[in-house]
Amino acid sequence: MNADTLTLALWQTCFAPTPAEALKRLDGAASTARAQGAHLLITPEMALTGYAIGPERVAALAEPAHGPLAQAVAQIAQRCGIAIVYGYPEQNPHGKPFNAAQAIAPDGTRLMNYRKTHLFGDLDRAQFSAGDAASQVFGWHGWRLGLLICYDVEFPETVRGLALQGADAVLVPTANMVPFDDVQRVLLPARALENSLYLAYANACGAEGHTRYNGQSCVLGPDGHPLAQAAQDEALVVAELNRTALQRCLAHSQRPWRRGELYGPLATG
Amino acid sequence: MNADTLTLALWQTCFAPTPAEALKRLDGAASTARAQGAHLLITPEMALTGYAIGPERVAALAEPAHGPLAQAVAQIAQRCGIAIVYGYPEQNPHGKPFNAAQAIAPDGTRLMNYRKTHLFGDLDRAQFSAGDAASQVFGWHGWRLGLLICYDVEFPETVRGLALQGADAVLVPTANMVPFDDVQRVLLPARALENSLYLAYANACGAEGHTRYNGQSCVLGPDGHPLAQAAQDEALVVAELNRTALQRCLAHSQRPWRRGELYGPLATG
Repeated sequence: MNADTLTLALWQTCFAPTPAEALKRLDGAASTARAQGAHLLITPEMALTGYAIGPERVAALAEPAHGPLAQAVAQIAQRCGIAIVYGYPEQNPHGKPFNAAQAIAPDGTRLMNYRKTHLFGDLDRAQFSAGDAASQVFGWHGWRLGLLICYDVEFPETVRGLALQGADAVLVPTANMVPFDDVQRVLLPARALENSLYLAYANACGAEGHTRYNGQSCVLGPDGHPLAQAAQDEALVVAELNRTALQRCLAHSQRPWRRGELYGPLATG
Repeated sequence: MNADTLTLALWQTCFAPTPAEALKRLDGAASTARAQGAHLLITPEMALTGYAIGPERVAALAEPAHGPLAQAVAQIAQRCGIAIVYGYPEQNPHGKPFNAAQAIAPDGTRLMNYRKTHLFGDLDRAQFSAGDAASQVFGWHGWRLGLLICYDVEFPETVRGLALQGADAVLVPTANMVPFDDVQRVLLPARALENSLYLAYANACGAEGHTRYNGQSCVLGPDGHPLAQAAQDEALVVAELNRTALQRCLAHSQRPWRRGELYGPLATG
């Protein structure tokens, strides 16, 4: 593995009926992704349990960051030789579970655990507590990576926060619904372009009760243009991030020209 | 004039060879805009003097906010019965002039003067001093308006700052060049959508020495979709802002769900 490139795979999938079935399917996706040259596989938000499953089932399936699902994912990562970013409900001793995502290295160790800070709509807020810490960049194989979850990425502040920490790529497990295609069409290209970084958005597809997911998982380059994009059906989206392309875009970055001293109201409102 | 709607006109024009000629053309544009029902006309950045004219000529043509160009614009506004937002070089007793824009009411009074805070590239920085105050919203006929200039609007922080002050519309005199079409194509729709506000971007066209402007002036709705957009030639772009459409978008606004307490690093970096 050459640190000049990093190959991502996005697993656009329908939610499975049980965590056991989700893990079985994840094992297959990880194996296929590795065979296609991917170093890191990203699942949708809450991929192991389902997302629109109601507060009781979320609470029943929630686990600590080192729980049985995490251990099963670590085994898949080790067996397939691939890093995995996956979404799951994290137990919270003080209230409703967190909507979390965790990055596991190919040796099974945890790289990062992140709790969604911007909950979306009644469904999210009925099921989850919001995280109280901004996302932190972590390093892996010479790349600086950051995690966000679904609605988080729609706020320019979150991606900017990771960019200011030097993120090369932002990885986003998501469960974006019909009819919110403008997230993929309008907001994501701007997030990548305005921050000169790669953005990977791994969405669910299919339906969960009355909730329909709009697919269109994508990897965007640091110029805001798509490297790869799925349609609305199940798909494995593979794209290679390239250090040289990133540095070419960083030469035109907004970052040196920001006026942080004028942005105080953004941190209070 | 009904406060439920506000009709804007964007004057997409080539730069005139002299300020006198620019004022003459502005008078014609203002008259046409008013005849087409516009309440407010927006010119490009530095519309009265030219933009890529070199530091000596900028300094020679710079004037105070109440200078002769301002008085001539006020007369045009009064004669045509239209508000005018125009770009000009503002004298600075402490250094290079500011790249400024000023809003003049139809009665000739000043509504706002703003100094560009984010200078773009060697050309801008050779000619101008950067303003040191974030843009402030001003009210007119029941609408809350904010000014930004060109590169300013590419930073999510600037538009967010105006949105947090309650801006209904952000008005942007600009001189965006070939090949930076991604500003109009990618960044502007995101700025409007993520802030649930109208955005009006009045660009120059044609050439000034080796500098070519890319036109494509546009008014975007608070859903990020274009209401009106020019091609690359001279044009008067007219669009009506609608209070009901704005409120419909505001019902889905990000603003209540921001996590200002997590955004501290944005105001220091």
